Amino acid sequence: MYYAGIDLGGTGIKAALVTREGEILQKETVPTGADRHWTAIMADMVELIWTLAARQGIDISEIRGVGLGVPGSVDPEHGKLLYAANLPNCADMDARTFMQRELGLPLYIDNDANVAALGESLFGAGKGNDRCCVMITLGTGVGGGVIINGRIFAGAYYGGAELRHTVIVENGRPCNCGRRGCWETYSSATGLIRSAREAAAQDLDSLLWNVCDHDLSKLTARKVCEAVDEGDPTANRIMDEYLHHLAVGLGNIYNIFQPEILILGGGVSGRGEKLLVPLRGLIRSEIYGHDMSKVDIRIATRGNDAGVLGAAALVMQEE
Amino acid sequence: MYYAGIDLGGTGIKAALVTREGEILQKETVPTGADRHWTAIMADMVELIWTLAARQGIDISEIRGVGLGVPGSVDPEHGKLLYAANLPNCADMDARTFMQRELGLPLYIDNDANVAALGESLFGAGKGNDRCCVMITLGTGVGGGVIINGRIFAGAYYGGAELRHTVIVENGRPCNCGRRGCWETYSSATGLIRSAREAAAQDLDSLLWNVCDHDLSKLTARKVCEAVDEGDPTANRIMDEYLHHLAVGLGNIYNIFQPEILILGGGVSGRGEKLLVPLRGLIRSEIYGHDMSKVDIRIATRGNDAGVLGAAALVMQEE
Repeated sequence: MYYAGIDLGGTGIKAALVTREGEILQKETVPTGADRHWTAIMADMVELIWTLAARQGIDISEIRGVGLGVPGSVDPEHGKLLYAANLPNCADMDARTFMQRELGLPLYIDNDANVAALGESLFGAGKGNDRCCVMITLGTGVGGGVIINGRIFAGAYYGGAELRHTVIVENGRPCNCGRRGCWETYSSATGLIRSAREAAAQDLDSLLWNVCDHDLSKLTARKVCEAVDEGDPTANRIMDEYLHHLAVGLGNIYNIFQPEILILGGGVSGRGEKLLVPLRGLIRSEIYGHDMSKVDIRIATRGNDAGVLGAAALVMQEE
Repeated sequence: MYYAGIDLGGTGIKAALVTREGEILQKETVPTGADRHWTAIMADMVELIWTLAARQGIDISEIRGVGLGVPGSVDPEHGKLLYAANLPNCADMDARTFMQRELGLPLYIDNDANVAALGESLFGAGKGNDRCCVMITLGTGVGGGVIINGRIFAGAYYGGAELRHTVIVENGRPCNCGRRGCWETYSSATGLIRSAREAAAQDLDSLLWNVCDHDLSKLTARKVCEAVDEGDPTANRIMDEYLHHLAVGLGNIYNIFQPEILILGGGVSGRGEKLLVPLRGLIRSEIYGHDMSKVDIRIATRGNDAGVLGAAALVMQEE
């Protein structure tokens, strides 16, 4: 049997044909055309599934169902995308009915960040540890999801697991959610860049100026890390502060979820052990009981494939 | 069929015979004798169950099983209390084997705060809303528990759901867990009293001095509330700050768990609507999307019975 996983993004629709073991057999991406009406976007998804099935030489009836990750709020019970800021004509998209009518396949939907966490949990860094697994993506924002007993947990109304919007610094940095001091404002790549810009403005000798050709607007998380690795004291201070805030947020997550595996993904996680080694030291003092024997933090392994894998897993868990 | 629920505390062992609907038919409490070996404490539990069964005029075989809430860390899979600070001779208490041998009844164990949350969720203020229910107890500390799909959630190793030990104020008040700025240091009754003492020391005209007979060591949460209700400006400022911190912590919980019902218990919750009305106003700006239509905060209704009810429910959920 085969499983179809689709990752609907603001720029691309990515689809894959996946086995029960999480092997991707076929994969294809087409542009989203984000301004189009949802029926046109769904028609492209149907077309993608035909294409993948044809390439694999299988019949549509050999596909168990379609999983769909979407960048917005969802109603998983009814298979609907409710609202996505980047897809203005996709409100109340009835994906389930459309797919059932066009291909006779059941469709299961969830938020893309949660779906990617599911994929990474089941088929990536979290494999074999599905009692409780938390994934945190350190990118433009702080994304991620919570997997409990092998399933996405997002609260009673599917809009929870917003770990990024938990206040860790009372009256701290303003967040676009309206609160102040949300974890995301410190631990995202954007938060790191903001801190580095502010520090560089106070230290005209910092290497932070060199790595961005003396234009702070060109500063990226990667360039900040370059300055750190070249031993710049200011950049190192900023990275220490960044790691402290990251550890406070992860400490909160440990005290709440006590996950078997905590997975870090996104751009900043590309630092690998350079990130993990100091982080483990800092987390020790943040977790209840200071017991590191139950702390297992890993870097994500499935990258951008986590989305289609997690989407396919939405189908598997209905069997 | 009948269910036995036992709430083991540092001072008393409370047992009850409960129906499937959460009605308490018989109830009895005996002193714990906290320094005794666990076999003696367990023998008293067995005796309590005999007593309750006799009073009800039923046979032990009509009891489905025994649920037990304990003030410490547990291994629910094996029915053991691992460690309880207030019960020094109860480490590695093998409650399940003991109960099986003495009464031939299955025993299920969990942490007392989680068990009380389960009781309140299923048979109290949360009744009928078991998809996700969070209970917070505002007492000496900040207790509580998380119920997901009608079951206790406490992380992969049963030691999570420590909502009280999440940092909301970076570098804030020192907490006995070793962190700084934990929610508990602000939102417990102890936190309220601390704030009131500090404020009274700066304002010798405050009514806070009158309500405690000019001895700040006698200040209690109830007395602080008296000064608030009498219109004392300093006490009101402290209460406003208290409510702000409470709202920040509850906002974090909402963004993570999006519970159907959030239940407040413990001494401070005795303020009822005087607590809930301003709190609802403050929480609005703390929750993601500021959508109050999914926010339902209630005061606990089962008081001290929540423990035995939740313990009995541990048995019910195994059926």
